[in-house]
Amino acid sequence: MTLDELARSTGEWLATGGPLSDVVISSRIRLARNVADQPFLSRASREQRTEIERTLFEAVAACNFGQSTFYIDVDKSDPLDRQLLVERHLISRQHADAEGSRGVAIASSETFALMINEEDHLRIQVMRRGLNLDEAWEETTRVDSALESLVDFAYHQRYGYLTACPTNVGTGLRVSVMLHLPALKLTGEMEKVFRAAKDMRLAVRGLFGEGTDALGDFFQVSNQVTLGENEEDILSAFKANVIPSVVKYEQEARRVLQKDQLAILDDKIWRAFGLLQNARTMSTEEALYLLSHLRMGVVLKRVQNVNLDAINELFLAIQSAHLQKRQGTKLDGEHRSILRAQLIRDCLARATTNKN
Amino acid sequence: MTLDELARSTGEWLATGGPLSDVVISSRIRLARNVADQPFLSRASREQRTEIERTLFEAVAACNFGQSTFYIDVDKSDPLDRQLLVERHLISRQHADAEGSRGVAIASSETFALMINEEDHLRIQVMRRGLNLDEAWEETTRVDSALESLVDFAYHQRYGYLTACPTNVGTGLRVSVMLHLPALKLTGEMEKVFRAAKDMRLAVRGLFGEGTDALGDFFQVSNQVTLGENEEDILSAFKANVIPSVVKYEQEARRVLQKDQLAILDDKIWRAFGLLQNARTMSTEEALYLLSHLRMGVVLKRVQNVNLDAINELFLAIQSAHLQKRQGTKLDGEHRSILRAQLIRDCLARATTNKN
Repeated sequence: MTLDELARSTGEWLATGGPLSDVVISSRIRLARNVADQPFLSRASREQRTEIERTLFEAVAACNFGQSTFYIDVDKSDPLDRQLLVERHLISRQHADAEGSRGVAIASSETFALMINEEDHLRIQVMRRGLNLDEAWEETTRVDSALESLVDFAYHQRYGYLTACPTNVGTGLRVSVMLHLPALKLTGEMEKVFRAAKDMRLAVRGLFGEGTDALGDFFQVSNQVTLGENEEDILSAFKANVIPSVVKYEQEARRVLQKDQLAILDDKIWRAFGLLQNARTMSTEEALYLLSHLRMGVVLKRVQNVNLDAINELFLAIQSAHLQKRQGTKLDGEHRSILRAQLIRDCLARATTNKN
Repeated sequence: MTLDELARSTGEWLATGGPLSDVVISSRIRLARNVADQPFLSRASREQRTEIERTLFEAVAACNFGQSTFYIDVDKSDPLDRQLLVERHLISRQHADAEGSRGVAIASSETFALMINEEDHLRIQVMRRGLNLDEAWEETTRVDSALESLVDFAYHQRYGYLTACPTNVGTGLRVSVMLHLPALKLTGEMEKVFRAAKDMRLAVRGLFGEGTDALGDFFQVSNQVTLGENEEDILSAFKANVIPSVVKYEQEARRVLQKDQLAILDDKIWRAFGLLQNARTMSTEEALYLLSHLRMGVVLKRVQNVNLDAINELFLAIQSAHLQKRQGTKLDGEHRSILRAQLIRDCLARATTNKN
């Protein structure tokens, strides 16, 4: 697997067909781990940092995860390649922008990625399409155990796993679910979600995590605190309460829109479709916004002849690094916008049959 | 001819194919006349007003204009019918909204309309598609002479024709040309036109005359003063200087857009086309704005498969009274917007062949 091949595929987290996939895009689980007897990265020397990367790289290489992995030396990577990894949610923007020895090991199916020397020495991230925390958790523990059999992780009898940031101490677990909430956005009811999340001590963030806006009506809901909670409780709260509530809100909003405001709903959907099929230049933000409305139209069967896979593929393909990798050349913003619009037109033309 | 039939036709002034019709929509000539020995309308009693209408109505009926005319009693008309006449530029909004005896005689081809008891007792208006002031002037003098052979018009040896407003005294002539200037609007160069117009003591107004904005990038250029000028001078200034200059500005702006900003130009055009073909609800203002861009695209052959007649027809058909007359029922704003979007989609589907 190469980054060029990666740039042409959809990836696990945006693939269609997972459970509740009309609302839930993907489920992610992350564990924070640090190598015992090595300083946290904020206090590590360059040499120690390199030593930590080597230790973890070798452990990853020695593990049998049931599928192959490939390793990207992020420190030596081209900025465009780093950006590609951020767009695919395989590494964080912080990891892309940092300095010093660091990398990421990516499962060839993209169901997991192991960031080395991000905020912690090791971040295990496991992704699944739709709402599928059980499978994600099963793989997480499998990857974690495989690595723990080779590496000693910093662990405290009383506090649990030790991490660079106190909010991660304990389980080091973050559960996060990416939701597509266009109807709640349209009806102006996102406040409901924010309130419910706050009551449950959860964070609601945009497409690219902390500090990013709700691009394309995508929202990540995740736990904020791990200390003093155990893994099972966090996971079952998500499965039993958090996600079902938000999904219900969104489905109710979609029902109301279809019942009482069908013309307005259809107008949003079809305008998005019309612009995506016709524009000659388009920013990433606008494309995400319009694709979001088109996706809602397809899921609600208001648009009947467009392949949902194609739309999900576009959510990634229109992003700047993906565009440039596919094109095989660096482009300025103006040319990216022209190429983006063309890619969308071509892709929708292929993905549209004459059924409407 | 009935108003219902009128509502389904395009009318002379928006028909395609006139001279310079890529930029010049239509040419209009108006003469202001008043019946001698009758007071101006601001001083006329109800009875005198009725008497004036009768005198002029009978003269119109007795004239042979070379084509039939039909008379609308504006005072007794339904507000929707009056609005229809305003949308077709057959009467002014003032004439629609006024009170007391008044009417309009309309040539069955819509090449002229005679407003009775508007600001003056009689307003002769002659319309032609494209830049065609010669033909319009020829018909104007023919209609004027025919009426003058039956009615004594107020005329002063020294000042010329006497009119209710001093700006019309003299020839009573207003020449006005409707221009479609989307490229100057896009390049932000309308200032050029306003400056040139000011230098030549001309007014530049929107689609519906004084106080209306430049809806759909349509601008009317007209003379402001008639006293002390003779008809031929006013007309030749329009033909030789005013209109050719503005047409040249617009054509130059279109050339520059195509040469240096083709992606931006195409984006405007195709977005408009995409929205017109897909929206489910649309205001008059937005429809005019988008039709204007699509018209430019068709004229510049950036869009190759859409019939220009259909677009010109839509400029009228999407307006509120036209919509309701065609539908045969009064509708609130929300339903008009839905119907408007549907009419546009249907009309463009019929007018589009699969050539792009």
